[in-house]
Amino acid sequence: MFAYVKNKFVDYNQAFIHIDERGFKFGDGIFDTIIVNNYNLYQWDFHHNRIVKGLKSIKLKGDISGLKQIATKLLRKNKLANGLIRLSISRGVGSQGYLPETTKPTIVMQAMSAPELNSQMANLFLSNYRRIPSCCIPVSAKTMQGLCSTLARTEAVENDCYDALQLSINDKIAECSSSNIFWFKDGKLYTPSLKCDILPGSIRSAVIRLSPWPVIQGEFLIDHLQNAVEIFITNVAVKALSVKRIKPLNKIYTHTEVATKINSLLQLDIEEATRGKN
Amino acid sequence: MFAYVKNKFVDYNQAFIHIDERGFKFGDGIFDTIIVNNYNLYQWDFHHNRIVKGLKSIKLKGDISGLKQIATKLLRKNKLANGLIRLSISRGVGSQGYLPETTKPTIVMQAMSAPELNSQMANLFLSNYRRIPSCCIPVSAKTMQGLCSTLARTEAVENDCYDALQLSINDKIAECSSSNIFWFKDGKLYTPSLKCDILPGSIRSAVIRLSPWPVIQGEFLIDHLQNAVEIFITNVAVKALSVKRIKPLNKIYTHTEVATKINSLLQLDIEEATRGKN
Repeated sequence: MFAYVKNKFVDYNQAFIHIDERGFKFGDGIFDTIIVNNYNLYQWDFHHNRIVKGLKSIKLKGDISGLKQIATKLLRKNKLANGLIRLSISRGVGSQGYLPETTKPTIVMQAMSAPELNSQMANLFLSNYRRIPSCCIPVSAKTMQGLCSTLARTEAVENDCYDALQLSINDKIAECSSSNIFWFKDGKLYTPSLKCDILPGSIRSAVIRLSPWPVIQGEFLIDHLQNAVEIFITNVAVKALSVKRIKPLNKIYTHTEVATKINSLLQLDIEEATRGKN
Repeated sequence: MFAYVKNKFVDYNQAFIHIDERGFKFGDGIFDTIIVNNYNLYQWDFHHNRIVKGLKSIKLKGDISGLKQIATKLLRKNKLANGLIRLSISRGVGSQGYLPETTKPTIVMQAMSAPELNSQMANLFLSNYRRIPSCCIPVSAKTMQGLCSTLARTEAVENDCYDALQLSINDKIAECSSSNIFWFKDGKLYTPSLKCDILPGSIRSAVIRLSPWPVIQGEFLIDHLQNAVEIFITNVAVKALSVKRIKPLNKIYTHTEVATKINSLLQLDIEEATRGKN
């Protein structure tokens, strides 16, 4: 497999960056993961917009033109028609301390197969780690600051759960360590609004666009899930994955109809959006 | 110059890590910076203890034995008797998502000259970025989650200041982007306690140990600085650096006597602690 590192396509095993890369020293950069279908990037405009906004929010300047062309070339070189593109933009090499002294970002790209979709309903663990608030770092950007998610996901797995449900520091339902959350109640879909310090996920955005039910974005306490009929989580790897239980809460959710419908709408949208472009 | 990367001493220009290193993908690791004098590491026990606690707090397991020996060998190879050792421990290569699937941490070490000490008093900027609270990630560990510090320091420099003074999310004085803060008032030294979501800095610890004045660690609002006679910030690079003003507050601080005394005590302590060991 080939990867793209700093203007070059290189063998994955030779895909290296320098130890003084700020992405390594300080997690100083952003990344993104994009669905690939038929050699095409699904929702590229959404991702590109999030990348540009993200870079602006962390004050990372520098040339990032040609990302789509690089991704397409990488997929062709790897003969990977379907899967995921993972893209990182780190602030670059240089500067001993926190103050950036470089405007040459390092672009890294990888092409990879999509993981197998889960066929079982997922258990979530109500995390002890809160999401980082937006008064500390930009949270609408998919930054390399992944320790909070790493610790929450680890804690979830230690508790025999698939993922962690994390609250904001204001006790509102926020998101999972690597996915957004939706729930169905009274004929409507509910999901935390961007005020809850969540990442605006690309599948979250697609679900809001495609849902045949009204979608209410708001600020909700955990109690709001008590009378939900169905819960599911979303990201580019799992699409919409149904939730069975949120430990240590006792309620068991059994319905999967809404997630099933959303998944079929997503699949149609992906096919439609990527048809025949290549 | 040589660097140490994954069990090898390598030329600095060839010091690479893989793009799938979790330190690069997620800032998933810790680092530390240690003063070197006469080929000896100042306050090694403090640093080693912080490293061990830090690794535990981010649940990073794996062999990290021999760090001191590696550091000493690196200094000898580089013929660097005085300066700094910078040490990074990243969780290692592997695992596509946040969930760690590796227990082989990657150890990186660099030896470098200490920066020139500032002879001028520093201006601080009262940052718009709050310190990340300990309910989100461990803050007593020097993690690679450096975006908050990077953004705060950048904002400070944009406002013609040397560093940023950051508050906790509860409006308490916390620390600067890369230094701790002390102030002198009524014959006592004041500094934020660890409850204020600050890093327990190594020079902070030395100042508390060496101070001829009582040191009060507590939770203070920014108003507490209004009647301070003198302010200084501390880290391994600047030791104790006097502060002239905290923008946009108007008060000008002119005294430097306490910082001067602290610096001379620090210098004596460094000489004493590292004398004749090598």
